[in-house]
Amino acid sequence: MDELIRFRDEINKIDNELTLLFEKRMNISKRVAEYKKNNNIPIYDPVREDEIIRENIEKLNDNGLSQELELFYRNIFKISRIVQEKEMKREK
Amino acid sequence: MDELIRFRDEINKIDNELTLLFEKRMNISKRVAEYKKNNNIPIYDPVREDEIIRENIEKLNDNGLSQELELFYRNIFKISRIVQEKEMKREK
Repeated sequence: MDELIRFRDEINKIDNELTLLFEKRMNISKRVAEYKKNNNIPIYDPVREDEIIRENIEKLNDNGLSQELELFYRNIFKISRIVQEKEMKREK
Repeated sequence: MDELIRFRDEINKIDNELTLLFEKRMNISKRVAEYKKNNNIPIYDPVREDEIIRENIEKLNDNGLSQELELFYRNIFKISRIVQEKEMKREK
């Protein structure tokens, strides 16, 4: 059972950092949305999203995780759009 | 336009770390699955998942992101199960 506790401890540490980075990323995407709105640029940018996925897949040590990494980022983009829409409504 | 480039640069740096952490977390979840299999413990643990979400929501500076953070982690758990199942099949 110690091994499982050790794994959970490692995961808790990783999640600590993931949560910090998630919040940072969402705050930046709010500012991106604001910038784009003020400059009449469409918020949704599928080319940029594909680029982020491609670049990050290349950083994987194990490219057997490529599909899973894509799922991870597609979900982050979806959540970013929710946060951006919330921000736009808040400003009206 | 410089501002947008600066935002993208910040996001690229965050994604660098997210990708590293993602891969680390998936590798640990493979080892968790292996441990659980060898010790006849069910892999799916909804109580643990709820605990992770609750603990990480508390770490947010802006609890207005609580729902979005839950979406983020629910997706990570879903992806982890895909990776764990792949690992189990690989070992047969």
